[in-house]
Amino acid sequence: MPELMTRTGTRGEPAVDPDDVTIAYIGGGSRQWAPNLIQDLAQSPLDGEVRLYDAVPESAERNARFGNWVDDRPEATADWSYEATDSLPDALAGADIVITSTQYDPAETFVHDLDIPQEYGIHGAVAATIGPGGILRAMRTIPQYREFAAAIREHCPDAWVFNYTNPVHFVTRAMYDEFPEINAIGLCHEVLGTRHRLARYAREELGMDADREDVSVNVKGINHFTWVDEARCKGVDLWPVLEDLLESDHAYQRFTPEDLEGESVFTDNWQVTWELFRRFGVLPAAGDRHLIEYATWFMADGVEGLNRWGVRRTGSDYRAKHWTPAESDQTTDVEAWLAGEKEFELTDSDETFVDIVLALAGEKTYVTNVNLPNVGQVDGIEEGAVVETNATIRAGEVKPVAAGGFPRPVRSLISGHVDTIETVIEASREGDVDHAFEGFLIDQQIRTLQTDEARELFADLVAAESEYLEDWDLEGSSVLAEAERDLQ
Amino acid sequence: MPELMTRTGTRGEPAVDPDDVTIAYIGGGSRQWAPNLIQDLAQSPLDGEVRLYDAVPESAERNARFGNWVDDRPEATADWSYEATDSLPDALAGADIVITSTQYDPAETFVHDLDIPQEYGIHGAVAATIGPGGILRAMRTIPQYREFAAAIREHCPDAWVFNYTNPVHFVTRAMYDEFPEINAIGLCHEVLGTRHRLARYAREELGMDADREDVSVNVKGINHFTWVDEARCKGVDLWPVLEDLLESDHAYQRFTPEDLEGESVFTDNWQVTWELFRRFGVLPAAGDRHLIEYATWFMADGVEGLNRWGVRRTGSDYRAKHWTPAESDQTTDVEAWLAGEKEFELTDSDETFVDIVLALAGEKTYVTNVNLPNVGQVDGIEEGAVVETNATIRAGEVKPVAAGGFPRPVRSLISGHVDTIETVIEASREGDVDHAFEGFLIDQQIRTLQTDEARELFADLVAAESEYLEDWDLEGSSVLAEAERDLQ
Amino acid sequence: MPELMTRTGTRGEPAVDPDDVTIAYIGGGSRQWAPNLIQDLAQSPLDGEVRLYDAVPESAERNARFGNWVDDRPEATADWSYEATDSLPDALAGADIVITSTQYDPAETFVHDLDIPQEYGIHGAVAATIGPGGILRAMRTIPQYREFAAAIREHCPDAWVFNYTNPVHFVTRAMYDEFPEINAIGLCHEVLGTRHRLARYAREELGMDADREDVSVNVKGINHFTWVDEARCKGVDLWPVLEDLLESDHAYQRFTPEDLEGESVFTDNWQVTWELFRRFGVLPAAGDRHLIEYATWFMADGVEGLNRWGVRRTGSDYRAKHWTPAESDQTTDVEAWLAGEKEFELTDSDETFVDIVLALAGEKTYVTNVNLPNVGQVDGIEEGAVVETNATIRAGEVKPVAAGGFPRPVRSLISGHVDTIETVIEASREGDVDHAFEGFLIDQQIRTLQTDEARELFADLVAAESEYLEDWDLEGSSVLAEAERDLQ
Amino acid sequence: MPELMTRTGTRGEPAVDPDDVTIAYIGGGSRQWAPNLIQDLAQSPLDGEVRLYDAVPESAERNARFGNWVDDRPEATADWSYEATDSLPDALAGADIVITSTQYDPAETFVHDLDIPQEYGIHGAVAATIGPGGILRAMRTIPQYREFAAAIREHCPDAWVFNYTNPVHFVTRAMYDEFPEINAIGLCHEVLGTRHRLARYAREELGMDADREDVSVNVKGINHFTWVDEARCKGVDLWPVLEDLLESDHAYQRFTPEDLEGESVFTDNWQVTWELFRRFGVLPAAGDRHLIEYATWFMADGVEGLNRWGVRRTGSDYRAKHWTPAESDQTTDVEAWLAGEKEFELTDSDETFVDIVLALAGEKTYVTNVNLPNVGQVDGIEEGAVVETNATIRAGEVKPVAAGGFPRPVRSLISGHVDTIETVIEASREGDVDHAFEGFLIDQQIRTLQTDEARELFADLVAAESEYLEDWDLEGSSVLAEAERDLQ
Repeated sequence: MPELMTRTGTRGEPAVDPDDVTIAYIGGGSRQWAPNLIQDLAQSPLDGEVRLYDAVPESAERNARFGNWVDDRPEATADWSYEATDSLPDALAGADIVITSTQYDPAETFVHDLDIPQEYGIHGAVAATIGPGGILRAMRTIPQYREFAAAIREHCPDAWVFNYTNPVHFVTRAMYDEFPEINAIGLCHEVLGTRHRLARYAREELGMDADREDVSVNVKGINHFTWVDEARCKGVDLWPVLEDLLESDHAYQRFTPEDLEGESVFTDNWQVTWELFRRFGVLPAAGDRHLIEYATWFMADGVEGLNRWGVRRTGSDYRAKHWTPAESDQTTDVEAWLAGEKEFELTDSDETFVDIVLALAGEKTYVTNVNLPNVGQVDGIEEGAVVETNATIRAGEVKPVAAGGFPRPVRSLISGHVDTIETVIEASREGDVDHAFEGFLIDQQIRTLQTDEARELFADLVAAESEYLEDWDLEGSSVLAEAERDLQ
Repeated sequence: MPELMTRTGTRGEPAVDPDDVTIAYIGGGSRQWAPNLIQDLAQSPLDGEVRLYDAVPESAERNARFGNWVDDRPEATADWSYEATDSLPDALAGADIVITSTQYDPAETFVHDLDIPQEYGIHGAVAATIGPGGILRAMRTIPQYREFAAAIREHCPDAWVFNYTNPVHFVTRAMYDEFPEINAIGLCHEVLGTRHRLARYAREELGMDADREDVSVNVKGINHFTWVDEARCKGVDLWPVLEDLLESDHAYQRFTPEDLEGESVFTDNWQVTWELFRRFGVLPAAGDRHLIEYATWFMADGVEGLNRWGVRRTGSDYRAKHWTPAESDQTTDVEAWLAGEKEFELTDSDETFVDIVLALAGEKTYVTNVNLPNVGQVDGIEEGAVVETNATIRAGEVKPVAAGGFPRPVRSLISGHVDTIETVIEASREGDVDHAFEGFLIDQQIRTLQTDEARELFADLVAAESEYLEDWDLEGSSVLAEAERDLQ
Repeated sequence: MPELMTRTGTRGEPAVDPDDVTIAYIGGGSRQWAPNLIQDLAQSPLDGEVRLYDAVPESAERNARFGNWVDDRPEATADWSYEATDSLPDALAGADIVITSTQYDPAETFVHDLDIPQEYGIHGAVAATIGPGGILRAMRTIPQYREFAAAIREHCPDAWVFNYTNPVHFVTRAMYDEFPEINAIGLCHEVLGTRHRLARYAREELGMDADREDVSVNVKGINHFTWVDEARCKGVDLWPVLEDLLESDHAYQRFTPEDLEGESVFTDNWQVTWELFRRFGVLPAAGDRHLIEYATWFMADGVEGLNRWGVRRTGSDYRAKHWTPAESDQTTDVEAWLAGEKEFELTDSDETFVDIVLALAGEKTYVTNVNLPNVGQVDGIEEGAVVETNATIRAGEVKPVAAGGFPRPVRSLISGHVDTIETVIEASREGDVDHAFEGFLIDQQIRTLQTDEARELFADLVAAESEYLEDWDLEGSSVLAEAERDLQ
Repeated sequence: MPELMTRTGTRGEPAVDPDDVTIAYIGGGSRQWAPNLIQDLAQSPLDGEVRLYDAVPESAERNARFGNWVDDRPEATADWSYEATDSLPDALAGADIVITSTQYDPAETFVHDLDIPQEYGIHGAVAATIGPGGILRAMRTIPQYREFAAAIREHCPDAWVFNYTNPVHFVTRAMYDEFPEINAIGLCHEVLGTRHRLARYAREELGMDADREDVSVNVKGINHFTWVDEARCKGVDLWPVLEDLLESDHAYQRFTPEDLEGESVFTDNWQVTWELFRRFGVLPAAGDRHLIEYATWFMADGVEGLNRWGVRRTGSDYRAKHWTPAESDQTTDVEAWLAGEKEFELTDSDETFVDIVLALAGEKTYVTNVNLPNVGQVDGIEEGAVVETNATIRAGEVKPVAAGGFPRPVRSLISGHVDTIETVIEASREGDVDHAFEGFLIDQQIRTLQTDEARELFADLVAAESEYLEDWDLEGSSVLAEAERDLQ
């Protein structure tokens, strides 16, 4: 039985002092998140320092420059200093907060995650958190995050760890598996997106003045496959509104590939959401492009099948471009701002990070969705599995709310994915490839293959990404040996 | 599997409108709670009306007069109106909030609850929530609260119900057993008392400026037998402070009967608390006088044994006097105030009621301890049993936080009491006296008797209180028949 | 929590008297089972009477004639009388044993169960116990067996009920759902087949003199999807033998459609069995043709995919012919024997029926596999679900052995099917078609469709078989209404 | 989740060969069990060798002489050889069967177990398996049996281990805790005694010809606190008989100390049994003298209280004498027989040992009660705890039957004792005395003391028996330190 108990150390000292927050940012060279964070902090009531650690030191240095540059600007009301470091221990030593947001070469690996399964007829929309691509990504990432967790145990065991890396459920689970007393939470935007959408309905259908923060939901499930069974806007029950919409044309739209041309891969038409709500009576709370990888009926007819529900597939070319600095749309701003080539305006992101830190520092009580090991907050899902629900955050504590359970069919869908996740986590303890393959095999996307095709797909993915799988015992695997024998 | 799901009705309307709150108060003739409530409301940001219902109509009328009198005073910033009613349906019709705080003639019954077990060598300190007296009180009260729950289902099914009546666990559980969709919470002061005490330690030991609201605890258990395993003051971990105190003389005090002479029956020296903390590593969070009725080692040597730990026994004479209007110390104020015989000063109580209603109305996010059916908030205790933990309260919702579990020995102690409670609840469905006796027999206080003595004690209690046990099948009981045969 | 407790009635009387056994046979007109039973009984140490009840009275009468004819033969050592009845109450009144083996017009319905899903690309090998055809069969059969269970409660509540009707898990579960105190067991041959196969390996690999009765297995799962994790022949562990075979060519055979031409649809090449054993380390214990409907990877490439593993698909023409008296191969014997057109030789079947009755009558202790509600015999599968394990049968009792659990991936596969079964059972209580569709939708075979295709398939099946679905609220179904709307 | 899976090793070899059984007997110098075993084996269909190992080598040698002497007698139909050894590895090497039946100096320790608690007012009738004496005995014995289990893992991991040493639940549990794959069963006579008694009722009340083997029960619980909810004699339900007796004078007897004078300490009047049956509707299946230590109401009035129900207390003088060779009544036979001073007649005991070995060797299917880790055989009691139910024993396997659960109050009583047992087992892993004390403190007998008296009692027992508690960290215990401080 896991416990989520926090002991915050030295007698008489608070967990997080709002005037002196030390943040270690693993993956601090990020081109999008880090600049957002820097701006959010600059406008916050918090002061402190941020240590940026990255496998690519120059990215971290660039962000440190940017951070200090922002701090010097008059509109920055807070006081923050930034430094880059290439030493993980130095970054972590005594940190109050650790952010983890990094992974192996995404430009390359994401392409494999998307393209290789496609050869087997599996067209996941994102391929990032479940299904063949997602599971391989988990296999690459878990050992790395076990190392981070071990370093946190050594250098800042009481720190609050915010994991933003996908697959959030696998990765957060791995950190707890390595260091059960870690104070880690997995964070994700999908539920925030649902609340945005619900605020829109409150405005449109009830004429309320409403934004995301006015909407509260009772949310539960696993990351990217969460479900809502209560929703309110300023205390007004939105359920009758949703039930009315469900019967309207709004919830019966279908799309052709042409309809979606030119749309962003992030476009979300909620038609998968409505269909699942119609079938099971509870509302999914993640983007349709994620839902279809867990509720795999929608993948039955390949890309066209996805399109019909208004879902676009993330092309591997998009992935490659997005993650290649020189080509990504996102990459230029910081440098341009620093160089004075582009006008800078301090903006705030939609992130909850500052709100959570403020709550941990005792400045307010804040409720938001987080990923944590199940200690009872989700009924019917096994204890210890990382689940997503709301948590109440106060000075020095994050406590998940007991969100109840699911209609049986939904519980069944979720449990199946938990079985994959837990099998891979178990396998990762000893690097047991064959056991990981058992988790792979029972994944819903992969069940559309014969077992020997599944083995081949697995072997292809492993071969393409083997340099990132060094902690796995590839040599000792019978599954890989069988696959090899079949190919000869 | 119970669910705590709230659907608040009419499209577009909030659960609780802070400007128009309708409160039904069952037991509204109360001489202490009602005047406190009236004063708290008068100073709150809430407006509305209160309907006072009581078995003794003149008490309700007196309080209605007092309520309206207070409302007319200039220092009353809020706008509330009060009326007394002798119709339960009228009181409940469309209410947003229901308060339940009433029971059968306490002046008489409490005396039996205390005195009859005493004849058998069982000297409970309060005899109000467990042990022979507590179980009989439950047997009297459960049918009454089943009726209230049924009336709420009929007249105001969406109302938020605040139950203050002891035994809170039995009573709240009975209401959910009768009407599973009820939005009821059981409320009690004991955990607030622990937080007051912890605030004191924060002041004394850490020199902090602290009061109850600054202290947060992770609390869990059943009412009057709750336990804390995390405690902070403004984010500062109080655990090291408690561990230091545990080794000091402060936590090793013993008392003689003489030491306690003249002390209030409510005096709390925390020596039972410290001893249990020492034994099990988690801190009990209820007054010592309650704890000893659940952790019955302390009752082993009768009243002197209790005294040794600084606990006084509530004498039945005290009970009788307290609950007899003409003799109680508490009774005179309202009449004196209304008559102008005593100067009135608007004060606020230590109650959380207004805070909770404000949170339900969406005015703030509030965390406090409540009693609710277990949907996962307490690990290791059966689902559906009424447990006490913190809950997060927001517009239209009360969500218990998942508080984790217990060291095995503590779980074992709690589970035993849950078995008594659940057995009596099961028995109450059909008024099955013999089944209720099984729950009685396995109670820890009663296990100090032979089974036939226990039967006799049970029969004596039933005989003394039979007029309040009309919903039980006394005629059909073999246990009572056996007891009768033994006596002849 | 279900209990399997047997109280056998009148003081001083045994549950089953071996010299006076009364058997009620529902479906007693059967052309294969009944003649087998008659011959088995004729050679048994039991005496008594059999009442044959059938929807087609003349079949029952034919079998009664045959039964009495066999009884008169000199080689029949036992003493049995047979009578046909068209009154279910008469058949059941005071019976010691009830056999249930009947269903709605199989010649017609089985064809739909096989052919309609085929139009949607779902080629189940048998379509009889899970998948779209199996679920529809369950929907037809459950209400019928609820009625039988209710009649048993009325006319012979203490009788031992042997259910042979598929889908055994759904049907047996429905009988317990209707009458929880029923003494019913579901019986099936598949595990016996596994024991036959294991006996063969003991002979071939270890040179032992062995047949089925010498082989003991630890078996667990749900009917047609059971698994073995211990196997012995006369106390000799067969696991090392299985592990050696797994590495040999014996366990790596693949087939073309041509290879299988002319083979019986019952042919079993065990290649699915070996592949699943290889993947999960435990041995499936049902025919490959059943396994592939639960472990649906093997259905990924249609009929050819099945063939590759040595599995033939049961053609609907076979089904139609088999179940049409005039055309079935099985139908002629009884009439031919009675008419003296064919020589009769008393043979015994491979059935366990007589062994079980002998054990219930106290003549021996017998261990065999049965289907019963889970009271702990299978770990990790929910309580109350009908599971299959060994049971120990003695005078007046059938007690399942606690068989333990599964490797996680296998448990995951089984749980998913249990969720379908339990959803349909829940739905059948009120005839809720939409809820049944939820169970249908999460079936693994159906997850290869889009949700709207699944709905259409469901509607097609319901339309084709509606005359047998009268206990379901077809009118009130939104799912069927949606499907209809889509078609217009 | 524990599993009870047996893999019996070498390809092609049976677990137990009836013609060549190797038995290692730890405690082989026993004066009662060993001579019984020798005689049972001499008349069995089994042949083989027995290695007698004992801390007192001369006792083992005496029994070896006796064994071979019996083997030479003409009436000994089987062929067995006996040898004594003072090497545990030699005794165990390759054994098929291991018997464990030994403990530290019982003549001395049992006296403490009985007498020291008596000073605190705790008058257990036996003080051998629960309560203060029983728990201390567990603390002495657990480390010893951990060593045996470790030696079995090393020298004969596949052996079937029969543990006869009390407290059977603690000891068997400790062996599984040390070596989870051990094939150990705990054996005890109490349930056999219940079956004897039930056979008597079948004879007396139903006029049947019946002995123990004709009676089958559905039994479940923990050793010495097992319960029966089904009982039959040759298939005839005995429940109506028991219910009739319950109402008769037979089940309402009371005794004075004088009534019991001269009675054996083993005398069993079943009045505790009847009273518990009356209260809870299920029949306890252990001697009254054991039951009262688990259902402690009967201990409420000291020895007189026990006597009232017909229970005698085992005096420590009896214990001392019984276990002192020179004084015990049992000691003389073997020597007398060997010396020809007393006529020898080969008799068979009431033991099930030979039956179980015969079943393991494949000679029959045998059902009897055994103690095993809970894998589902007892519902409502935690997995892994050692529980007692029937098991079905066949060639190479022992499988507990799934016996169901309990009425809630009975489950509650049992769970409390399991919590003590599991706490002590947990504590024994590291020799953590303070944690063991937590298990001691929550024992029902000890809850009649104040916590500081309980501590003192614990310290007294530890002090008296410290030479047998070397594996416990007595030095590091705060509880013992506190107790010492209190005494000064």
